[in-house]
Amino acid sequence: MTTEELLESVHELNRRDEIDGILIQLPLPPQVDEKKVLLAVSPEKDVDGFHPVNVGNLSTKRPGLVPCTPAGCIEILKRSAIAIEGQNAVVVGRSDIVGKPVAMLLLNHNATVTVCHSKTRDLPGLCRTADILVAAIGRPGFVTRDFVKPGAAVIDVGINRITDKAEFEKFFKGNAQRERQFAEKGSTLVGDVHPQVAEVAGALTPVPGGVGPLTIAMLMSNTVKAMKLRRGQAKPQMVGSR
Amino acid sequence: MTTEELLESVHELNRRDEIDGILIQLPLPPQVDEKKVLLAVSPEKDVDGFHPVNVGNLSTKRPGLVPCTPAGCIEILKRSAIAIEGQNAVVVGRSDIVGKPVAMLLLNHNATVTVCHSKTRDLPGLCRTADILVAAIGRPGFVTRDFVKPGAAVIDVGINRITDKAEFEKFFKGNAQRERQFAEKGSTLVGDVHPQVAEVAGALTPVPGGVGPLTIAMLMSNTVKAMKLRRGQAKPQMVGSR
Repeated sequence: MTTEELLESVHELNRRDEIDGILIQLPLPPQVDEKKVLLAVSPEKDVDGFHPVNVGNLSTKRPGLVPCTPAGCIEILKRSAIAIEGQNAVVVGRSDIVGKPVAMLLLNHNATVTVCHSKTRDLPGLCRTADILVAAIGRPGFVTRDFVKPGAAVIDVGINRITDKAEFEKFFKGNAQRERQFAEKGSTLVGDVHPQVAEVAGALTPVPGGVGPLTIAMLMSNTVKAMKLRRGQAKPQMVGSR
Repeated sequence: MTTEELLESVHELNRRDEIDGILIQLPLPPQVDEKKVLLAVSPEKDVDGFHPVNVGNLSTKRPGLVPCTPAGCIEILKRSAIAIEGQNAVVVGRSDIVGKPVAMLLLNHNATVTVCHSKTRDLPGLCRTADILVAAIGRPGFVTRDFVKPGAAVIDVGINRITDKAEFEKFFKGNAQRERQFAEKGSTLVGDVHPQVAEVAGALTPVPGGVGPLTIAMLMSNTVKAMKLRRGQAKPQMVGSR
């Protein structure tokens, strides 16, 4: 498959009125110009929310499609009845996919938001100022107890597969279920947050089973939203009823 | 002038190849749909940098046009040889025109960035953690000495005209030049930062004469950049030479 063939498919899906959402599943084959293909998706069908138009819409609070994982983080806070407004939120990581959009969403929900990254000084100290701490860096168990203020809500976006026995024991030694899983499969998943954080946090999303499933749910939610936005409808119309 | 007439003008300017930059001078007459007119400006000629596409480009570090006042803030730091990378930057205010884009620019320059606003708890305390403090709220002299860590760089984006004698004296009593000006004109300009902050800050941009002139300069810089981006040129070509 060439870039041109893929672009042609995207253009056709853009044109077809019965298609409400388009998602480019990455990675694409090496010969394909990934950037070009992603930009070709019509912003109004961009259920990933990655198109610059949707990024701009999020920042300026215009109606648009919001990236799924960040939207899932907000959803989890809301459903857990954790206040956002007026709280100090610290986001570790500044990727286009999670860090920046989740920071923007928290700001739009009236949190005071700090974005940290590899150049941040005294990262643990800064993270300890957080009422809401979001870890999205892709480093297994990087956020340890000393990063977390007692009672803080911690959202662990990282999903890291570990296969090394010594690394496994650092995180899960004495956890019978995980030890059984690791013995059977030779691997297990750990987030960016060290499991010990559960002892100090007021709330902590599990990995697996926390933000991950929410991401998929938000993708479906975005697809319905895309349909509503495109048709100017206040209420969703069932896809099957067309 | 109707919305339709104005849209027609914008469309024509979008089409004309010899036009590199378009700026909609606000406010527009009340009968005109301001939002619609602003969105009609082609993103590649949007020298204000307010179009969602350019907002998205800034957030995702794609080439694009950056809002002038935020770009001026960065320029002033660079020209003053004030380091940004690894510094704690606090932005007070989260407008689409200044607060959010300047936060994004500081983040892109590797600062650790916190965005504060009316819902922020202990605003003075948070501001005192800043190595770089940006005030963009539009409230005369709001940022007082107790907001500022000794030696911090303070960028005052506010431009507020004061006409009340008592308010004037709160800021400028004993300042002969300002008193003469106020007596002559009946008004003077004050930033969002109280003049006393000069006694504690390591650097402070004056109002007037600080960020204001930089905004105009960045508008010209954006116009040249727009030309280069649109023509895919590495080096600018003089407009007069076409």
